[in-house]
Amino acid sequence: MHKIDLRVRYQETDAMGVVYHANYFVWFEIGRTELMRAAGFAYTQLEADGFMLPVRQVNCHYHRSAKYDDLVTVETVVTRLSPARIEFAYRITRAGELLATGETVHPIIDNQGRPVNLKKKAPGLWAALNKAVELEIKER
Amino acid sequence: MHKIDLRVRYQETDAMGVVYHANYFVWFEIGRTELMRAAGFAYTQLEADGFMLPVRQVNCHYHRSAKYDDLVTVETVVTRLSPARIEFAYRITRAGELLATGETVHPIIDNQGRPVNLKKKAPGLWAALNKAVELEIKER
Amino acid sequence: MHKIDLRVRYQETDAMGVVYHANYFVWFEIGRTELMRAAGFAYTQLEADGFMLPVRQVNCHYHRSAKYDDLVTVETVVTRLSPARIEFAYRITRAGELLATGETVHPIIDNQGRPVNLKKKAPGLWAALNKAVELEIKER
Amino acid sequence: MHKIDLRVRYQETDAMGVVYHANYFVWFEIGRTELMRAAGFAYTQLEADGFMLPVRQVNCHYHRSAKYDDLVTVETVVTRLSPARIEFAYRITRAGELLATGETVHPIIDNQGRPVNLKKKAPGLWAALNKAVELEIKER
Repeated sequence: MHKIDLRVRYQETDAMGVVYHANYFVWFEIGRTELMRAAGFAYTQLEADGFMLPVRQVNCHYHRSAKYDDLVTVETVVTRLSPARIEFAYRITRAGELLATGETVHPIIDNQGRPVNLKKKAPGLWAALNKAVELEIKER
Repeated sequence: MHKIDLRVRYQETDAMGVVYHANYFVWFEIGRTELMRAAGFAYTQLEADGFMLPVRQVNCHYHRSAKYDDLVTVETVVTRLSPARIEFAYRITRAGELLATGETVHPIIDNQGRPVNLKKKAPGLWAALNKAVELEIKER
Repeated sequence: MHKIDLRVRYQETDAMGVVYHANYFVWFEIGRTELMRAAGFAYTQLEADGFMLPVRQVNCHYHRSAKYDDLVTVETVVTRLSPARIEFAYRITRAGELLATGETVHPIIDNQGRPVNLKKKAPGLWAALNKAVELEIKER
Repeated sequence: MHKIDLRVRYQETDAMGVVYHANYFVWFEIGRTELMRAAGFAYTQLEADGFMLPVRQVNCHYHRSAKYDDLVTVETVVTRLSPARIEFAYRITRAGELLATGETVHPIIDNQGRPVNLKKKAPGLWAALNKAVELEIKER
């Protein structure tokens, strides 16, 4: 599991006085980017190498609201991995209290939009992500 | 079913050259706001009357990408309605081509965060939304 | 002068209950895009033709706050035009009441970032924008 | 001068492949918030005490573009201070290279929108901000 803390920005709030719901997906993206960086694979390098992980499906369940200036924690795990597809799950918490949970699904494609076999084309990233999944399974 | 056309803004795009995925939820919100306005119930009036429809759950499935300056259509339907909860479904299309589908779930609460019985507290809105649901069921 | 009406989105508001100040620049961009479209030059076509109008300088003066669901009007004029540079000014109003004024400055460059002489490279757009400036000067 | 580093988010980029210009104002806001926190005055506490610093005027000059995943530095200084008004200036840099400069002007008001004399109503904050200004003047 990867953890990163974020300070809620004024721009992220809305007239209800809480974080606008769509912004949790921005935090999810930061979570998976930093998980991959921690595994040794900056997403910018991935793009430079010709891979993209567009977003195919997302969901989020909101439990409690985040507010301006809150320090929230984004926890990210890889939940499924195949050579053609990667799935992440997320938990947003504030001082241990659960605010939201969500998931995102990403096909692995090249910059022409064609499916890529990550295992063949980027064995290092494939191994690192697999290791992340295995650790996750053990921890449960 | 309610339909509204939107012009994609430069600010809604990202470095992949397409609309950033979280922005579809902004369009969904415009869809349900305009559906309710068309039914005679401006969301601002609802808030002034002490009701809120926060977002409890959302999901979105992305099929094709919207691009800058595209004219996209947001189609919104009420899919479920109970006195305490309302659910919407959405389709985003561009010239008839499907770009994305999604759903959102909203509890009905007062401004202290307590559940509200919409049927009792706002019979007019309840009737209008029910009518929208019935029409939707007939159309299918 | 070009005019376009926009409905304020929930996503554009912040915890002060008003539109977040940076979002006025999103409206300014819509204003200049639609001014150019009205003059016969879609910005997408311009980009396809190899021109870009990045933002070099901006300012905004806020007089009154826009709120959720307000219908605001964006008025846009071309205030200066040279073959290498274009400047726009904007007024945001709500039912005639002034909310904000601002300006933006844009160099005209090609997609390698080199300055472009618009007069030579796109005489049609140059003529159309000049006409817009002349009309503006007459109207004053 | 206060300094804070930020990692550029994918959501902050646009179809030109760079950070959307309006987002620099989001970074400026983070800059002044953290300057005030460093001076011992969280903006949330200020709001709780009944003060607000809405945005009256802003400007930004863009020199070079920030890109996705860049680590940018926001430098913030208080440039003018009166009991009724505060002004900040900002520099955005990336590894020492100047990307943008800007300024913002904020009246000091209470939560009914009335002007507040900060010197009288919040002498601690007034003293801390004055100290920041003095230090700034010395450093120049």
